[in-house]
Amino acid sequence: MQVKEIELKGHIIDSFILPKVFDTIMDMGGDFDVTEFTIGKKKTEPSYARILIKTDTRELLDDIIGELIKVGATIPEVEEAELAAAPKDATLPDNFYSTTNHPTFVRINSSWAPVARHEMDLVIVVDKDAKKAKSVPISEVKSGDLVVVGKKGIRIEPPERPRGYSVFEFMSSNVSSEKPTESLIEEIAREIVAVKKRGEKVLVVGGPAIVHTGAHTSLARMIKNEVVDVLFAGNALAVHDIESALYGTSLGINTATGRPAEGGHRHHLYAINEVNKAGSIQALVQSGKLTQGVMYEATKKEIPYVLAGSIRDDGPLPEVITDVIQAQREMRKRLDGVELVLMICTLLHSIAVGNLLASNIKTIFVDINPATVTKLADRGTAQALGVITDAGSFLPLLEQKINELS
Amino acid sequence: MQVKEIELKGHIIDSFILPKVFDTIMDMGGDFDVTEFTIGKKKTEPSYARILIKTDTRELLDDIIGELIKVGATIPEVEEAELAAAPKDATLPDNFYSTTNHPTFVRINSSWAPVARHEMDLVIVVDKDAKKAKSVPISEVKSGDLVVVGKKGIRIEPPERPRGYSVFEFMSSNVSSEKPTESLIEEIAREIVAVKKRGEKVLVVGGPAIVHTGAHTSLARMIKNEVVDVLFAGNALAVHDIESALYGTSLGINTATGRPAEGGHRHHLYAINEVNKAGSIQALVQSGKLTQGVMYEATKKEIPYVLAGSIRDDGPLPEVITDVIQAQREMRKRLDGVELVLMICTLLHSIAVGNLLASNIKTIFVDINPATVTKLADRGTAQALGVITDAGSFLPLLEQKINELS
Amino acid sequence: MQVKEIELKGHIIDSFILPKVFDTIMDMGGDFDVTEFTIGKKKTEPSYARILIKTDTRELLDDIIGELIKVGATIPEVEEAELAAAPKDATLPDNFYSTTNHPTFVRINSSWAPVARHEMDLVIVVDKDAKKAKSVPISEVKSGDLVVVGKKGIRIEPPERPRGYSVFEFMSSNVSSEKPTESLIEEIAREIVAVKKRGEKVLVVGGPAIVHTGAHTSLARMIKNEVVDVLFAGNALAVHDIESALYGTSLGINTATGRPAEGGHRHHLYAINEVNKAGSIQALVQSGKLTQGVMYEATKKEIPYVLAGSIRDDGPLPEVITDVIQAQREMRKRLDGVELVLMICTLLHSIAVGNLLASNIKTIFVDINPATVTKLADRGTAQALGVITDAGSFLPLLEQKINELS
Amino acid sequence: MQVKEIELKGHIIDSFILPKVFDTIMDMGGDFDVTEFTIGKKKTEPSYARILIKTDTRELLDDIIGELIKVGATIPEVEEAELAAAPKDATLPDNFYSTTNHPTFVRINSSWAPVARHEMDLVIVVDKDAKKAKSVPISEVKSGDLVVVGKKGIRIEPPERPRGYSVFEFMSSNVSSEKPTESLIEEIAREIVAVKKRGEKVLVVGGPAIVHTGAHTSLARMIKNEVVDVLFAGNALAVHDIESALYGTSLGINTATGRPAEGGHRHHLYAINEVNKAGSIQALVQSGKLTQGVMYEATKKEIPYVLAGSIRDDGPLPEVITDVIQAQREMRKRLDGVELVLMICTLLHSIAVGNLLASNIKTIFVDINPATVTKLADRGTAQALGVITDAGSFLPLLEQKINELS
Repeated sequence: MQVKEIELKGHIIDSFILPKVFDTIMDMGGDFDVTEFTIGKKKTEPSYARILIKTDTRELLDDIIGELIKVGATIPEVEEAELAAAPKDATLPDNFYSTTNHPTFVRINSSWAPVARHEMDLVIVVDKDAKKAKSVPISEVKSGDLVVVGKKGIRIEPPERPRGYSVFEFMSSNVSSEKPTESLIEEIAREIVAVKKRGEKVLVVGGPAIVHTGAHTSLARMIKNEVVDVLFAGNALAVHDIESALYGTSLGINTATGRPAEGGHRHHLYAINEVNKAGSIQALVQSGKLTQGVMYEATKKEIPYVLAGSIRDDGPLPEVITDVIQAQREMRKRLDGVELVLMICTLLHSIAVGNLLASNIKTIFVDINPATVTKLADRGTAQALGVITDAGSFLPLLEQKINELS
Repeated sequence: MQVKEIELKGHIIDSFILPKVFDTIMDMGGDFDVTEFTIGKKKTEPSYARILIKTDTRELLDDIIGELIKVGATIPEVEEAELAAAPKDATLPDNFYSTTNHPTFVRINSSWAPVARHEMDLVIVVDKDAKKAKSVPISEVKSGDLVVVGKKGIRIEPPERPRGYSVFEFMSSNVSSEKPTESLIEEIAREIVAVKKRGEKVLVVGGPAIVHTGAHTSLARMIKNEVVDVLFAGNALAVHDIESALYGTSLGINTATGRPAEGGHRHHLYAINEVNKAGSIQALVQSGKLTQGVMYEATKKEIPYVLAGSIRDDGPLPEVITDVIQAQREMRKRLDGVELVLMICTLLHSIAVGNLLASNIKTIFVDINPATVTKLADRGTAQALGVITDAGSFLPLLEQKINELS
Repeated sequence: MQVKEIELKGHIIDSFILPKVFDTIMDMGGDFDVTEFTIGKKKTEPSYARILIKTDTRELLDDIIGELIKVGATIPEVEEAELAAAPKDATLPDNFYSTTNHPTFVRINSSWAPVARHEMDLVIVVDKDAKKAKSVPISEVKSGDLVVVGKKGIRIEPPERPRGYSVFEFMSSNVSSEKPTESLIEEIAREIVAVKKRGEKVLVVGGPAIVHTGAHTSLARMIKNEVVDVLFAGNALAVHDIESALYGTSLGINTATGRPAEGGHRHHLYAINEVNKAGSIQALVQSGKLTQGVMYEATKKEIPYVLAGSIRDDGPLPEVITDVIQAQREMRKRLDGVELVLMICTLLHSIAVGNLLASNIKTIFVDINPATVTKLADRGTAQALGVITDAGSFLPLLEQKINELS
Repeated sequence: MQVKEIELKGHIIDSFILPKVFDTIMDMGGDFDVTEFTIGKKKTEPSYARILIKTDTRELLDDIIGELIKVGATIPEVEEAELAAAPKDATLPDNFYSTTNHPTFVRINSSWAPVARHEMDLVIVVDKDAKKAKSVPISEVKSGDLVVVGKKGIRIEPPERPRGYSVFEFMSSNVSSEKPTESLIEEIAREIVAVKKRGEKVLVVGGPAIVHTGAHTSLARMIKNEVVDVLFAGNALAVHDIESALYGTSLGINTATGRPAEGGHRHHLYAINEVNKAGSIQALVQSGKLTQGVMYEATKKEIPYVLAGSIRDDGPLPEVITDVIQAQREMRKRLDGVELVLMICTLLHSIAVGNLLASNIKTIFVDINPATVTKLADRGTAQALGVITDAGSFLPLLEQKINELS
């Protein structure tokens, strides 16, 4: 086993440094003992901690130390920074150290030299004689420059969280449209399969874009295959799903070819009328006229669904609950046993359902608009994941991944 | 052959009514002769046209007439509107007519009755005795109400384009995130295959999100398979592609698992350093160290590529042209023979390349942000298509569709 | 009076060339007579038109001709292109011609020379001896190069609209976040003042962001001053407006200072409870407890308002209509006499109300998200205007401009 | 002085509970002593803390305790929950407690009763005899129901941060378009005035939307009045600013009226040509031809500015640095003494400059697109503030607030 002790000083609790240290060690697979800990008894007193890091391999220990240095840890037995010469212009020795944008010091000749210029992703070039260090971009490194390599002899002073209210804060965001799509969807599929194995329920909250983008065939199959246990939606998803089943279009656009159908702008009204003629969606299924789609499968499988009304509805369908308070009540009833919620392309329903959920329910927001995903995230959900993509790409790929894992 | 004559009156040219009539007939598969045409010789004089519509089937003729009525055409031999009784409350007779939001008139008892309330997607209920008509929502229709069905005896007066400057305009947008994704990508694949068969070139303009979302493996194969002939990008796409090839990460995130790699935030700088050590991307390929990815395939296939610099670049790589005017010059050179351009997740490069393109070049903008696609569309391109999705979903599906079609 | 004749050939109607010519002449303040017009009697036959442009000044005539050339008009009596030498490198003679991205020809030595490279915003350099022309960027112009100036002897061939269905279309968008904000708001103020002078009504459809951004004080004053005649909103606007009146916060944030108030997250529930204790908003006003804000002024002025429920509502307030079909009905009733609608920061209500409006009603969409404004515009409104800004900036400035104009 | 002791148990450091407790006490204006603290020496051991809260008033003490209960604190001497009867249906006793979405317990008859249903913004109704509690929406409360009021006898168990990597995380976002605009801008003005008083520098990084929205006149005055010390921009801002000064338009749109000017699409090229004729922006100022605008004031005041080139540039102007690495170098030089940076409507320059900044520099991002602000925030800046609005509203209001404070 490999061990090394680190030291932390200052306002390490209220500046979130100590929690980040614990997090980092555990997330990276290390273990630790707290060997000394003095908390400032008053708010003006700094705290102090010594922590023993324990890992299986030397390499992991170095990796963890490298990360901890960035959040402000120092190593008590001070080592000199390692230096290596640049082999040619704009070219660095292997294992070079790259900077953060925080104030940084390097240990040269037994003293801490401040690094001039705090800019991220640069390298540190040292003038040994003058005991000086500066950060420079790769393109400015000259052949022979002494460059800091490895993780020893580096000290960083992250800014402390300012006391009291400030308009400025540390900004960061977990919502990014630039994550690897396929691997992310695979992780979601894995979670869903795990939830189902535990006998818990999956709720889908969906908007009409599921039909417009042609993803309703995937959703229908996921209901048929008992992946989806509960469905919350509005009038529009049901109308366009039935429109698609009866006429092959969604808002008049042929969902197979993407081209507008002649007279297709009337199809959603015709679909409503067919349901009204039958008396209900269920009756339309029983009459043999509705033979496919999301609402068909939901009816056949008898999964509970809630269609909640909104003021933009055409029709609406007989199953739609036009009183919004009654609709809230129905949705609350159907949440028992739900452990994972997929919210797909519906801002209104996502906010409404998000308000009803306990904090330990896993929630996945899928929307094409980063601003929408940010808005949903704003509500503060403990186990949430935002995926910025379109339903037409997301659901077919999710279905495929779930099938592969089942 | 089926024929029917329609009539148009008023400011039919400068209100775009006549062109829309011609468009509609031809797009729907009909034919026409202009039997009479009088253009207003002065701007205050209305114009007049009689047009004979010709189709193969009665059904198509009716469909076309139905669409033309909506843009303001009338049928000279005036027919009475067809009426049918609602079979029960909130339920309509088949083939019911649904309204536009324009002023509308129906022919009852040989005279034109104005329809009260101009609202779209309603139905028209007629009081025959009072010669009155009003539009009502489906949910308000009562059993026995006389509802207008079919397309006869309906006249619509679309608003004329206001003369002179106004802050108000007719707004519409071709940019929608709610198109059927798969069929849209299939159409794009078909266009690309057609361009390649004609011996013309396909240019890809790409941003680093292609690598971040894991789609670079598809792009690399499309280069290897000679689907892509020219590549324009910036430093970041090349850096992260090489980072992915050497370390399996993009900006430190493992592109296969989506999880952050230990110390991964340094990988892109390490990738730059490996290229600098070798001297160039080409040299790194020749040394056998770079064996996969977009830049590897582009080097192996010797397709022309331009890496244009920007002020946010780290490094940059030796092949990057840091002088922006020189980069413009290189891009212009590489546009010869290009007939179709795919712009994927890069606002800066898309605007820059868009500025260089002739108006007849087919241009496809792919971005996750609807606002970005709108901004690109703002530049006025004659043959353009905006697709709102993420690169990680788009490129793999496009590759698959091209393979199926080839 | 100045006159000049132009000529148009080809598919000038269905490619929208003729309507654009008429529009341009009239919008720029000129007049015209159609001196000859032959329409293709069959869809394969080209049309032909000669149009006499009439203006007051020579300068305006030249400006109009310049614009018409860009859409494809030619001048029958062919004039040579005017040329002037570049005074030094990268510097052009005055009045130089800048290119479009369409195929272009210049008249040199009595023949039409095609301009090599179709790229916009370049200049045309002519080699007189070789009768050749090419477009070059400003930075590539050399001293002494012969550059085309003025508008004579230039012919442009815009692409014809492709026949039949294509995924590619001409893309353009009227939604831009880069319009001069102040002058745009001034135009809107002018429209509102004109509507009020005609005795017609102004409807505001508003979301809770009006209160969150502090703009509700402006809206309240606009109701008091009889600028706003009708108000459509949801539970949230009313709740946060009353929260602001009673506790000085909106969702717990002090609207004057922008800082969170202690225990403020409960204030909106407390506001609901105060209304419930009183029995209604009206009763709370009568009791003397509610003394300011949007709902206060609406109650005092007795303007009609509709608060429509949605499934995300807390409470809701007693005045909220929880049945959505009933809410639609109430909104329809209140639209009589409304000539201008301001839709501010509410996607749900904007779509719902947009569906209810006749095509000749002026509609202004205000939202911070360009994608939202695009989505609203997608619905096809004849007299619409999208403004991309936040309510907190928009309403106070609008109020000020209306006051200045009244 | 008021005092009360609270207790914390469990993984209070790595679940961020302890830091949040310290933060909350200090942000709300209280003081504290840590009376006992045992940290888990191993990662599996829970920690324990007793903290004495000290405040000036009883009311503040209660407020603080109320907030701390929400993050999981308990009060050692256990008190019974306070109950009060609902005065009528859907109406609550004053000072009612509203729920979080975490598991919650209330103290009834000396034991902790779990609250059924974890949903936020509900109230807790207690059945004393059955020792049961449940959360219910306001609208479901019946007259006489016993409702929990105040903050006593309530225990909350927030979810612990899951160990190890998970795709799910706690999501939250500081980027909101729904903050009170005017008070936010006032805070920014206050910061700027403070920075200037300390003799430090303000840097503006700006995009061309500043000119398009008409805000350049404010920016020009802020340079003249020595509020802005350094300016970073691209070719486009300078070109359109000079276009506006010479022709009154920006991209051909009259910035005073918002209407397109005849032939205005050429004005930006004419502006470039005027600068090229003079030889430089400075020469154009000296010649007396350029007499207003941002570049004029920057030249007159001799403030340092860097115009960095990009591949979409027309021209560019002689002062533009077309080599991007050289431009980075120039920008680095000009950062000395800069303490606050305003980044206005320019994604490219904002990311580029953000990369160059030390972590302690205050940074304000202004953009109309929430997704852009989120993207900028993603880079992790310690003292950042995102404002979602348009430049045309922001800069004039900022200028006015600075003038009022100076």
